[in-house]
Amino acid sequence: MGNLNREALSLYLVTDRTLSLGQPLPEIVRGAVRGGTTMVQLREKSCDTREFVELGRALHEMLQPAGIPLIVNDRADIAQVIGAEGVHIGQHDMAYADARRLLGPEAIIGLSVENDEQARECRSFAGLDYIAASPVFATPTKTDTATALGLKGVQHLRQVVGPALPMVAIGGVNRTNIPAILRSGADGVAVVSAICSAPSPEAAARELGAAIKQAKP
Amino acid sequence: MGNLNREALSLYLVTDRTLSLGQPLPEIVRGAVRGGTTMVQLREKSCDTREFVELGRALHEMLQPAGIPLIVNDRADIAQVIGAEGVHIGQHDMAYADARRLLGPEAIIGLSVENDEQARECRSFAGLDYIAASPVFATPTKTDTATALGLKGVQHLRQVVGPALPMVAIGGVNRTNIPAILRSGADGVAVVSAICSAPSPEAAARELGAAIKQAKP
Repeated sequence: MGNLNREALSLYLVTDRTLSLGQPLPEIVRGAVRGGTTMVQLREKSCDTREFVELGRALHEMLQPAGIPLIVNDRADIAQVIGAEGVHIGQHDMAYADARRLLGPEAIIGLSVENDEQARECRSFAGLDYIAASPVFATPTKTDTATALGLKGVQHLRQVVGPALPMVAIGGVNRTNIPAILRSGADGVAVVSAICSAPSPEAAARELGAAIKQAKP
Repeated sequence: MGNLNREALSLYLVTDRTLSLGQPLPEIVRGAVRGGTTMVQLREKSCDTREFVELGRALHEMLQPAGIPLIVNDRADIAQVIGAEGVHIGQHDMAYADARRLLGPEAIIGLSVENDEQARECRSFAGLDYIAASPVFATPTKTDTATALGLKGVQHLRQVVGPALPMVAIGGVNRTNIPAILRSGADGVAVVSAICSAPSPEAAARELGAAIKQAKP
């Protein structure tokens, strides 16, 4: 179990430079943080390792003073090298047990969960910090994802994993559907294009954050 | 400085599944080892992490009893998870200092060197185990490589790095040019297609190994 504060999952930005409309990623993240983003995942699927490390270091230097955890998608080595707070793994990434053994008990480790079977399986993953129910709604961001869960799917995953495991929902999140998503049992939402593709990431984050605050009791 | 025996660089197989003509990679490696391959680098550029780990574990289980080091290309996390002997990094991968800090003094770390400037730079990399002079000759294996060094380029790199740093040459190696490559100051050769694309990887490795033995004093 890493050092994850459940509140940090409220508004979780997952980066995607291919969707960032020409804005440099550090600028997007800076704006998102000003707007109230509570956690950031650096996801890079095609850049080389050197660039990934440099980008990760730049983001970590920005986020650490703000107390915002930086999570690296898939690459545990890059997380270690830059001193990131943890990794996010998908079902085709390293196995959870391998990632935990490698990174130790302090690291935050999150896992994408797309269906019932994966939700049942992750109940045995000692120390797992959070799951990302994925995708809630159909989304243009990822083309390799499973069928959309829908709100009922999120509710169901919450029942399967129990109340203790922190859970974010990702996929097609916007400020309109945030209240329903949170009512379905998610502790927060993860967004990609809602912030990365926004003309003002800061304003977008602020609007999403307001919707979250309003929805949470 | 890792635990590299300079002799292990003699015949260094670098894997490439896209060139393996339908033969499963473990079969190629098994044949190559029977034929006298002295070190193996697992290089995967497009498979997902889970598959990379599984493949790496299978190869490590095969190679460890034979005392043949397994080196993972780029992915230090995968090297750690599978207990590989080290990593090979290119100029666009993690910086040497980062890799060494991450993996510790025992790991074998090798670096691709393509030109004079990189060769001069690597003289300050304390504990670097070997360099791969790349590419000696033009090769269809990699499309992103620098201009071919030629034999004179290999000679020159040897002069720049000095006699102590182990060096393999890679790119367009075959049994005909092996004697000239070794005379140019390389301690061994690294091959991809010469073994991966051979009808019999075992026979190919044996022939290459015979050429190396004949050429070495």
